[in-house]
Amino acid sequence: MSQQSHDSIRAVLWRDDHLRLLDQRMLPREEVYVDCRTSDDVAQAIRDLVVRGAPAIGIAAAWGVVLAAQRNPGGLGAALSHLRAARPTAVNLMWALDRMQRAIARGADAGALAVEAQAIQDEDLAANRRMGDLGAALIAPGSGVLTHCNTGSLATAGFGTALGVIRAGVSSGRIAQVFAGETRPWLQGARLTVWELVRDAIPATLIADSAAAHLMDTGRVQWVIVGADRIAANGDTANKIGTYQLAIAARHHGVKFMVVAPSSTVDMATASGKDIEIELRPADELLGYAGQRTVIEGARAWNPVFDVTPAALIDALVTERGVVERPDAARMAALFAG
Amino acid sequence: MSQQSHDSIRAVLWRDDHLRLLDQRMLPREEVYVDCRTSDDVAQAIRDLVVRGAPAIGIAAAWGVVLAAQRNPGGLGAALSHLRAARPTAVNLMWALDRMQRAIARGADAGALAVEAQAIQDEDLAANRRMGDLGAALIAPGSGVLTHCNTGSLATAGFGTALGVIRAGVSSGRIAQVFAGETRPWLQGARLTVWELVRDAIPATLIADSAAAHLMDTGRVQWVIVGADRIAANGDTANKIGTYQLAIAARHHGVKFMVVAPSSTVDMATASGKDIEIELRPADELLGYAGQRTVIEGARAWNPVFDVTPAALIDALVTERGVVERPDAARMAALFAG
Repeated sequence: MSQQSHDSIRAVLWRDDHLRLLDQRMLPREEVYVDCRTSDDVAQAIRDLVVRGAPAIGIAAAWGVVLAAQRNPGGLGAALSHLRAARPTAVNLMWALDRMQRAIARGADAGALAVEAQAIQDEDLAANRRMGDLGAALIAPGSGVLTHCNTGSLATAGFGTALGVIRAGVSSGRIAQVFAGETRPWLQGARLTVWELVRDAIPATLIADSAAAHLMDTGRVQWVIVGADRIAANGDTANKIGTYQLAIAARHHGVKFMVVAPSSTVDMATASGKDIEIELRPADELLGYAGQRTVIEGARAWNPVFDVTPAALIDALVTERGVVERPDAARMAALFAG
Repeated sequence: MSQQSHDSIRAVLWRDDHLRLLDQRMLPREEVYVDCRTSDDVAQAIRDLVVRGAPAIGIAAAWGVVLAAQRNPGGLGAALSHLRAARPTAVNLMWALDRMQRAIARGADAGALAVEAQAIQDEDLAANRRMGDLGAALIAPGSGVLTHCNTGSLATAGFGTALGVIRAGVSSGRIAQVFAGETRPWLQGARLTVWELVRDAIPATLIADSAAAHLMDTGRVQWVIVGADRIAANGDTANKIGTYQLAIAARHHGVKFMVVAPSSTVDMATASGKDIEIELRPADELLGYAGQRTVIEGARAWNPVFDVTPAALIDALVTERGVVERPDAARMAALFAG
């Protein structure tokens, strides 16, 4: 079975004069596409979470700049500001818009900007395929793996980061079984990752987040494979809440732990995980489930969205530049020097 | 503040000629009581999960026998069989009905059976208060604690097991902060434990199950306190799925781990946790919530309801007979010999 046979999903689609986005809010119930014909439409779609996942947001924004150049070249500056404000904390959004802005400064017209946006999209896909091969090569044939949140085609130009390693590993026969955690409170694992895997004919089994240690104890998984939102210079990794708990359980059971992320996720200006601020989201996200209130009025909730997994619990950090095994500050520096 | 001020909830209420049960299926949305006037009503309520929690089920069944004796003494044998079949795997149900059957064999009439049922209920409450005092005494003043699932007044005659230790600890000022995990997939923590704590004016904060390790890393909790469904002769403890993961994370952070359960939960005929079979429940419980499907059709899920925490990860096992610190087979045997 070829690698491509497990890679059918694209969430960000350029259509010459408009951008088509798979509406991730509606999955898995409905597969609906949103057509964006102006850069404001794109900004709105980013703000409304039609598109999510840091690389996918950056790519969508780049196409938003192309739409502005096509329709209203005089308003390019305003369009860029508007897109930049759509999700102010998304690093990839800033990175992609900076790159488009440099092209504008070089005098690029709508056609040249479309070439740049396409390059951003193509390079992301290529990086994901490269990480897929590098990560899968670490896995012994016939292994079971567990993943968390959604790091797949929906979150990127396609193929995915951690889910790209899983696609590559399934295609090459190294991965025999895939488990996905629900990922409370947003259920990205249950809603999105399982949708992707079922769609791409990868046998997947959903578990409650709290069943992971028991799963490891049964011997069914040999690797935990996750993405990253920000990686410090020493390899400490911020990712979706629950990642740290999985890393501790993995080490306890001798299960290996892999982080997969493009090198643009590494922030060499951040010395360690202690310097990463953890975003707290509204309590409401925990006080209901699928739109239904489940908790008594007057209750409090603590809802950190990310946690930090110390580098010491990470067996392999996979980037498109190469793999860092047992990451620390020296090995991370070597990756970027190399 | 007296201990009683944090102990207002009773889910099983005898009313001279009928049994009143707080309908736990409706919490926290509505506080509805179901009146049972026959033993068949009680059996139905147990089957339909109006009442849950092993001790509470046993107490309700004992009152079911009293109702049968009041209304139809000739049908007592059939009533006992009917109640016994309501939830065939609940150990406390069998234990309570055995005790009622012995009273019948001694010639007890409806009045004497009511005395026996009241004794079962009172003894459970007394055991919970005793465990509350024993467990709370282990906790340093001003501590934060994390609990899982529901082990409170709703699951027992009142006060609770792990939640009884928390009630006692809050009353005595030893516990300053209480965190409760959601407890997927049934959300007993979110729906029931937070309801109890808010009702009894105990400041409580809900967290996602997967946020526990990050919570421990922030230094906010000094103890994890949980109940038990079955304890093996060596101290290995089967409890709600997710308990084992909490125990691993606790040990990693130097957070102490306490199991609270009446001595009737200890099964000296089971040598170790390896001999405890883990019940698997239908995948459907993970694939949606309250009738709303959250996962793509065709998805699989793995839904173990319990897991086993090895005795080596338990710092204190609290029973009404006393506390076993760092439990093992010898210390467990000593508890029952003493």
